[in-house]
Amino acid sequence: MSEQPPAYDPDNIFAKILRGEMPCFKVYEDDHTLAFMDIMPRTDGHTLIIPKAPSRTLLDARPEDVQHAAVTSQKIAQAAQKAFNADGILFQQSSESAAGQVIFHLHFHIMPRWDGVDLRPPGQKADDDVLEEHAQRIRDALASL
Amino acid sequence: MSEQPPAYDPDNIFAKILRGEMPCFKVYEDDHTLAFMDIMPRTDGHTLIIPKAPSRTLLDARPEDVQHAAVTSQKIAQAAQKAFNADGILFQQSSESAAGQVIFHLHFHIMPRWDGVDLRPPGQKADDDVLEEHAQRIRDALASL
Repeated sequence: MSEQPPAYDPDNIFAKILRGEMPCFKVYEDDHTLAFMDIMPRTDGHTLIIPKAPSRTLLDARPEDVQHAAVTSQKIAQAAQKAFNADGILFQQSSESAAGQVIFHLHFHIMPRWDGVDLRPPGQKADDDVLEEHAQRIRDALASL
Repeated sequence: MSEQPPAYDPDNIFAKILRGEMPCFKVYEDDHTLAFMDIMPRTDGHTLIIPKAPSRTLLDARPEDVQHAAVTSQKIAQAAQKAFNADGILFQQSSESAAGQVIFHLHFHIMPRWDGVDLRPPGQKADDDVLEEHAQRIRDALASL
């Protein structure tokens, strides 16, 4: 990165979700983090976890926000594993386009995985009723952790 | 996962590294975490971060160990970005074989990425002198963060 990355853009989609200006399929919320369904899921149950505080990537986030997001990600991993009877969980975070980042508010992916089942290609929007049903399954699993 | 995963195996390679029974190209160590080079790097600078406490995956780790590992991962990400002039950083963690886990002590990957440069295929051992030189670059960058 020969130049500094751009500053945080408060009009990114996740900032709008945090301000209630855009809807989401919410899974979990606390004082520091929000978790909601990825609308282009690479697997069933693909959930995003974001800190509420603004940061662009893992590189510019406050350590305390990384800690909060990591612990929420662990909870979501445990719940999604149960909710989808997953054989494994993939946890991923991309900083900057070169790593695959598309929306520039720090976000962590939790993806349930099953033996022999590949990730779906990126960019495929899921139906809203499927996303809501999957969100409900994870909420139910969170409540019974 | 229809059955419980196996218990933590204290003879896994990372446990041996933690006990000093196996060598590693160490990048960073504190009371709770250790970071060292992946000997089969998917990118230059590919570093692994592990909690010292035993856990198999993200699913069975103590939240405090996840927090420690996340903060160390952020430090390594910042240092590796500088050390390798990376355009981005990929942060990843696989729980169980279905997600790509091979060694069953919880570990997080930090992989520098550059625009237009693909990940290398898995399973390719790097030369020891290259790994040591890359570890030194990251140690130097950590010292100047």
